Amino acid sequence: MRAVDLIIKKRDGGELSKEEINFFIEGFTHGEIPDYQASAWAMAVLMKGMSGRETFDLTQAMVESGEVIDLSAVVPFAVDKHSTGGVGDKTSLVVLPIVAATGLPIGKMSGKGLSFTGGTLDKMESIPGYRINLTREEFISQLKNIGIVLTGQSVELAPADGKLYALRDVTGTVSSIPLIAASVMSKKIASGADAIVLDVKVGVGAFMRNVQEGTQLAEAMVDIGKRASKRVVALIANMNQPLGNAVGNAIEVQEAIETLHGEGPSDFLEHCIVVAGHMITLAEKTSNLEDGKKLAARSLRDGSALSKFQLLVEAQGGDVRVVNDVSLLPSASLKEVIPAPESGYITLIDARQIGMTAMWLGAGRAMKEDPVDHAVGIVIHHKVGDAVEKGDALFTVFASDKKNLDEARRRGLAAHKFALTPVDRLPLFYATIVG
Amino acid sequence: MRAVDLIIKKRDGGELSKEEINFFIEGFTHGEIPDYQASAWAMAVLMKGMSGRETFDLTQAMVESGEVIDLSAVVPFAVDKHSTGGVGDKTSLVVLPIVAATGLPIGKMSGKGLSFTGGTLDKMESIPGYRINLTREEFISQLKNIGIVLTGQSVELAPADGKLYALRDVTGTVSSIPLIAASVMSKKIASGADAIVLDVKVGVGAFMRNVQEGTQLAEAMVDIGKRASKRVVALIANMNQPLGNAVGNAIEVQEAIETLHGEGPSDFLEHCIVVAGHMITLAEKTSNLEDGKKLAARSLRDGSALSKFQLLVEAQGGDVRVVNDVSLLPSASLKEVIPAPESGYITLIDARQIGMTAMWLGAGRAMKEDPVDHAVGIVIHHKVGDAVEKGDALFTVFASDKKNLDEARRRGLAAHKFALTPVDRLPLFYATIVG
Repeated sequence: MRAVDLIIKKRDGGELSKEEINFFIEGFTHGEIPDYQASAWAMAVLMKGMSGRETFDLTQAMVESGEVIDLSAVVPFAVDKHSTGGVGDKTSLVVLPIVAATGLPIGKMSGKGLSFTGGTLDKMESIPGYRINLTREEFISQLKNIGIVLTGQSVELAPADGKLYALRDVTGTVSSIPLIAASVMSKKIASGADAIVLDVKVGVGAFMRNVQEGTQLAEAMVDIGKRASKRVVALIANMNQPLGNAVGNAIEVQEAIETLHGEGPSDFLEHCIVVAGHMITLAEKTSNLEDGKKLAARSLRDGSALSKFQLLVEAQGGDVRVVNDVSLLPSASLKEVIPAPESGYITLIDARQIGMTAMWLGAGRAMKEDPVDHAVGIVIHHKVGDAVEKGDALFTVFASDKKNLDEARRRGLAAHKFALTPVDRLPLFYATIVG
Repeated sequence: MRAVDLIIKKRDGGELSKEEINFFIEGFTHGEIPDYQASAWAMAVLMKGMSGRETFDLTQAMVESGEVIDLSAVVPFAVDKHSTGGVGDKTSLVVLPIVAATGLPIGKMSGKGLSFTGGTLDKMESIPGYRINLTREEFISQLKNIGIVLTGQSVELAPADGKLYALRDVTGTVSSIPLIAASVMSKKIASGADAIVLDVKVGVGAFMRNVQEGTQLAEAMVDIGKRASKRVVALIANMNQPLGNAVGNAIEVQEAIETLHGEGPSDFLEHCIVVAGHMITLAEKTSNLEDGKKLAARSLRDGSALSKFQLLVEAQGGDVRVVNDVSLLPSASLKEVIPAPESGYITLIDARQIGMTAMWLGAGRAMKEDPVDHAVGIVIHHKVGDAVEKGDALFTVFASDKKNLDEARRRGLAAHKFALTPVDRLPLFYATIVG
């Protein structure tokens, strides 16, 4: 078998066999197939697509390129979630405690943020002392002891995916549905999940710009799950405006804690209840989504989710006092409330622009190696459809210096659009795809 | 400017500007743009194509990646030819002396053969002592003194093309019309040609399998020529059966010498007359093709073309006696005439199979580094449309050992097909594309 022949086969629209895909991924992982062949292959895949069977075989080949975590001795059934990334997406911080509070142990390995979307680990690192580098043994014992873990990867899961992703990033081959689907699912399968709720964000503030693309990706991932005998549900979620109000790191942790206290923004709360409800139902804690959502809501109401969050922070070395005193989180030196420049109904709060502004303030990173400023960010005070009067508080900027503050004000104002006639609110979800 | 953005632009069907193409080719030539980006870009170009303007800018960028030879001080007008490669294609060996004999100095830098098509330099090296590695100074002085040179490249012309071609060869990105057109034309332009006759072979024994593909390539090359202010004519030539009878090295030289003596196969003779006629006309030695062909035919009849060939061999150190005694060329240890296995009209002499058989006997190379056996090959004794009787000589194999001979006999027989009813002869040319 020669790599060039497999590139040509895919280039001409052929379907690669399982053996051919294994040959390519193994050769690439071990450096026998050079980057320049892998990138040409990735471009051919991007152009010609992959069948469901090919996409699954690619996923499996990437799973098998590294260690596969077996949690069966620790948890009877491992449920996990994955978000494709959005602006203001602090869902894991609330959903994990909810799910854990219903008696389902959950250990999640998360990633750092890149570009205009924030990363869950960056947010958790706002909590003084919180460790995101648990060893494999710490992961297992914490999952056993308190039923909740939120950390980085202790071993590199699906290393072929890591290597291929780095190459795709610089060769214009990121935006291929089968490659994205295989990338996400290979890491989830390698991390030992039995069931996965996929939170696929679509809109201006997401990598998938419209419902059609998001649905294609969701269907590809659900299909991989089915072929891998995993229970999978994918939600197509709106990411045209930020999720919740806060976009940053410490301010998102604060919003998550408020939500766990029963005081968060209603859209974010509802989003978390739905995601958690699906996870609880997939794990057969309840027999249908409605009951799952009720159970999720109850664990918020009775404080058990908050207690789980507290246990989590404590177990991973974080300052547990933040749970009842968010002022202990890092705070920005400058804070300014920006008033609405006109009266009207809000028609747009451009999630991408808000995300870029937060990143520009220092909350996110353009390059993998960039440091993150945990204190800065933006809190919006309204949602699309709200009526505002000129002079009402529109959004608040948290910045580290005056120049940044001025620029963020300008950008934040540009992200908001107004109309004189009433405007519909945006839906939270567009669709649910069940495996 | 970032290479990845240019890949994405082309991936999405965009048109790259001259500046963008220069940036990419310069960066690639100097190693600033890595192979893995260049291969993804080449795949995107293969899939999305290039406009005429882009193809020309790519050609120019590759020309400018190295030295451009200026022959204006040596010859008033430099005419050149290029064949896209076929089986039994020894055209240069006859056309160059014809053209030189009409008073047009011609210095050609040629390449070695690869795969099932032979290379002009390999053929010339059959002549004992013939040097294909003239220095630039030798090239210039020989062109001045005797008006004919046939050698390899003294400096690497269009090095960006050499580097890109090597990469395309292993990444499934060879078969892109704009990339092939730019590759051919960049070398011709860099070698200082003012006018070029392109001999585009189409059929089973050529890289372009059908007239449509060949015409597309021809039109792309003619368009580049126009934009570069070069006079260009492209011929779409039939390569379903071998050109002439001999397929090998020494046996092709022998056939070329016989043709210069007025004794070659009629199809090959006619092919040479047409190519030479166009070259002579492009150089304005004659005002139309018919006169050009007449002038070409005359230089064969009066022996002046043969004399030029003799001068060429002598000037480059070859044993000049071969011109009148082909038995001095390398000869194979084994030679067998294979009889026709049945009576009938020949419907097919598969040029690719004949070429592969000659290569398999040792006449060609699969890899760039492989040595070549100058003595071996196949001579066919008929053309498509001929009537043969069972037992008539069908083809002759020249081999170095018995095992190879047996295999070549089997393959050569498989390449010939017969019918009971008369069959049309194949045309020599399908079309002529004028710039």
